[in-house]
Amino acid sequence: MTRPPHGEFGLIAALAEQFGAPPVEVRLGIGDDCAALAWPDGHCLLWTMDTLVEEVHFTFAYLTPRQLGAKSLAVNLSDIAAMGGEPRYALLSLGWPKDRPLSEALEFGRGLAEAARHYGVKVIGGDTVASPPGVVITVTVLGKVPEGEMLRRAGARPHDLIFVTGPLGEAAAGLLILQRGLALEQEVAAPLIQAHVNPRPQLAAGRLLAGSRLATALIDLSDGVASDLWHICRASGVGADLEARRLPVPPGVAAVARQLHLAPLDLALKGGEDYQLLFTSPPDREASLYQAFSQAGLGAPVRLGEIVAGAEVRLISADGDKIISGTGYNHFA
Amino acid sequence: MTRPPHGEFGLIAALAEQFGAPPVEVRLGIGDDCAALAWPDGHCLLWTMDTLVEEVHFTFAYLTPRQLGAKSLAVNLSDIAAMGGEPRYALLSLGWPKDRPLSEALEFGRGLAEAARHYGVKVIGGDTVASPPGVVITVTVLGKVPEGEMLRRAGARPHDLIFVTGPLGEAAAGLLILQRGLALEQEVAAPLIQAHVNPRPQLAAGRLLAGSRLATALIDLSDGVASDLWHICRASGVGADLEARRLPVPPGVAAVARQLHLAPLDLALKGGEDYQLLFTSPPDREASLYQAFSQAGLGAPVRLGEIVAGAEVRLISADGDKIISGTGYNHFA
Repeated sequence: MTRPPHGEFGLIAALAEQFGAPPVEVRLGIGDDCAALAWPDGHCLLWTMDTLVEEVHFTFAYLTPRQLGAKSLAVNLSDIAAMGGEPRYALLSLGWPKDRPLSEALEFGRGLAEAARHYGVKVIGGDTVASPPGVVITVTVLGKVPEGEMLRRAGARPHDLIFVTGPLGEAAAGLLILQRGLALEQEVAAPLIQAHVNPRPQLAAGRLLAGSRLATALIDLSDGVASDLWHICRASGVGADLEARRLPVPPGVAAVARQLHLAPLDLALKGGEDYQLLFTSPPDREASLYQAFSQAGLGAPVRLGEIVAGAEVRLISADGDKIISGTGYNHFA
Repeated sequence: MTRPPHGEFGLIAALAEQFGAPPVEVRLGIGDDCAALAWPDGHCLLWTMDTLVEEVHFTFAYLTPRQLGAKSLAVNLSDIAAMGGEPRYALLSLGWPKDRPLSEALEFGRGLAEAARHYGVKVIGGDTVASPPGVVITVTVLGKVPEGEMLRRAGARPHDLIFVTGPLGEAAAGLLILQRGLALEQEVAAPLIQAHVNPRPQLAAGRLLAGSRLATALIDLSDGVASDLWHICRASGVGADLEARRLPVPPGVAAVARQLHLAPLDLALKGGEDYQLLFTSPPDREASLYQAFSQAGLGAPVRLGEIVAGAEVRLISADGDKIISGTGYNHFA
């Protein structure tokens, strides 16, 4: 799998080159879910930032200001979960058009404050600016992880097993229901829409994987398994075989795909915003892994395939080998 | 002086209330130039974030992408200077329209990287997103300051003297030259345009004031003396008398004001983006202050007036007392 010649990944790589190599206390620089700095007490400080742009990442047609407030924090917390860390503090930059009521900005703040309380995060600063063409939100979060426990994209080895913490494609299916106005039974549609509107960062699973040392590499699913597994493989210098039959595609996701004449696997592999954790684990730890998740009261992780030597990410289907594209949502494509 | 009933300051206060009181290790939460966190080795971690929106905070008509890159870091570093701190690390979130060449994004990165090297800052992460209506940049910076040295907006006491580290109104005059196409001699126009295009965060002065304990309160001039002095007064529970004749208004600023039939004092008091430091200092330390700046090779700070009891910020003019409005550029006004 080659790096996309254009688009976000190429731009990030070119920018990273300009910014140069970080000093030794920077444990992780550009290219993982968070930057990580050595903290004097044996922890790493985790630092992440995400921007949501109206009509690119969200629309008020499907998301209330309050839901947007919670989601703008959640997507950052997912990056902290992807390092095995604990989120602590957040800053908010809120770009707000003059013609949108300030009462909605306060509703946004309410949703963000509720999510912050739920996840034990304190919002301690930021700024507000005018943004004539639409709402633009940037949240930056600081978290902590014991330095020896920190997980990253690099670390997967051949024969490691690949797991995901939950179902795939739900958020993408939920967004399609909203965008296309699909007619589905309420109990099918509701959890899918919930997955899009109110993503749940998998902080407990991330901490469990870091503390138990049961994972070798970890990333959160923001762009889709196809793209995010490729990130693990590229960072780890390995390839991967995914078994199509193992991908956890809920019946609701399949129903949405059927209505739109899409392949359910495409939603599962390339649908963004699942915010589940994708990780690799040594083959001899599979039983311990299920046991640890069960003891922690977490749903069992689902095994998707295996890390292999090489650099290819392959989807193994019933009708033979097939190479998946490896790129999910590309912001500039 | 009362708080503006509408606009940014009201929104920030309402949001701050929703986010609640920070825990004890948060030395400064919402309402100063940076948030500050206790760091285990006796330092405070300083954390700031600023967003620049195309056609609100800048336009490519007057600023090259490379200049914008440097400026987007500089405005954050000014916030670190305003606490007496040293900047260390930055994350960049770059919102870029698809129809703007990626080569300009790389020029932006070049300018940011150059400024980062100049000020000893490492850019260690961030993200890039599509932003159809225009360029939106958020930079967040972490810095450090010895905990006992940290300066803040609160701390000014009656009889303290008020100082500024450099001339006032230059950046506002420079922007007016660009916007109105004013005809001025090159040697008059160039430094004013430079002040707008390439602001210099006063990091050395900030560190000097913090290390020498010669200041009681400190803020950077992003909105203008009228507004920023009001912030010091509100945080410190005091008032202030500014002497109009003492305001350092360079001849070029006066020339721009004359051409546009504006009062030069208005540019000096309400022109934003000076990024000089405004601070207060005990009256018996004035000589030590000039000496310390001189020994450090820094230009002498300029005395503007005096902190007084009460809550009013007054401009003392030759024709009697006059109350200035106390609000500078208000993002939502």
